[in-house]
Amino acid sequence: MFNDEYFMSQALLEATKAFERGEVPVGAVVTCKNKIIARAHNLTETLIDVTAHAEMQAITAAAHALGGKYLSDCTLYVTVEPCAMCGAALGWAHIGKIVYGTKDEKRGYSCFSPSVLHPKTEVVSGVKAKECADLMIRFFKAKR
Amino acid sequence: MFNDEYFMSQALLEATKAFERGEVPVGAVVTCKNKIIARAHNLTETLIDVTAHAEMQAITAAAHALGGKYLSDCTLYVTVEPCAMCGAALGWAHIGKIVYGTKDEKRGYSCFSPSVLHPKTEVVSGVKAKECADLMIRFFKAKR
Repeated sequence: MFNDEYFMSQALLEATKAFERGEVPVGAVVTCKNKIIARAHNLTETLIDVTAHAEMQAITAAAHALGGKYLSDCTLYVTVEPCAMCGAALGWAHIGKIVYGTKDEKRGYSCFSPSVLHPKTEVVSGVKAKECADLMIRFFKAKR
Repeated sequence: MFNDEYFMSQALLEATKAFERGEVPVGAVVTCKNKIIARAHNLTETLIDVTAHAEMQAITAAAHALGGKYLSDCTLYVTVEPCAMCGAALGWAHIGKIVYGTKDEKRGYSCFSPSVLHPKTEVVSGVKAKECADLMIRFFKAKR
């Protein structure tokens, strides 16, 4: 049960909360030993803050849950490929593993520099990619 | 009086506060029409949070002060070249101008990708560079 698909479905639940608030629908969870220690969704409009991406909040919350700023034993599940800001933050956090859903062809960290991540971070992509992408497409269609 | 050197000396005051707390001594201020609207210094150890760089806090505080998330009419003064996380955050914020003191040869955003910034952002470097660098050198010497 506690596999990548399960945790991505939890990140998707977070993304749906963002969608319902009129926020770009990105959601994230952080796990440690198969337990979710942080959940977050994009809140840039609500908080009037470009730094309030799901991943940034999840990093802060996970560090508080663990009582330490390094997340080497943690996995971040996020519905969309992290941007350069979030990628570099995950680099500073030495995150153990990143699992993302759909690629961000324009703003994903890999468009800028994959080396913002820590060299030991494992990256898996494409988990529930279609569901993650569909939510984004639906959001931007409704905006137009 | 209200020139780049003046505002950098204010950022240096913030960096000194970080130094005194045992934090990597980086300080920042954000100005809008020659008025300081946000001040911050690195708090990663105090807050147990890798995202608590001076620039990130300054972006959040400036957006709150203005009531809007875009900082196109603002200048960020920061003692050390922003990292990729902060550079990309400044990109999302559409910051008008960045003035930094000393270059970060290992972790500066320009080592990764200068294009994380918004294309319209003006960048000035080297303002009070020696004072900004000296504070960092003194900090890391004391740590050894």
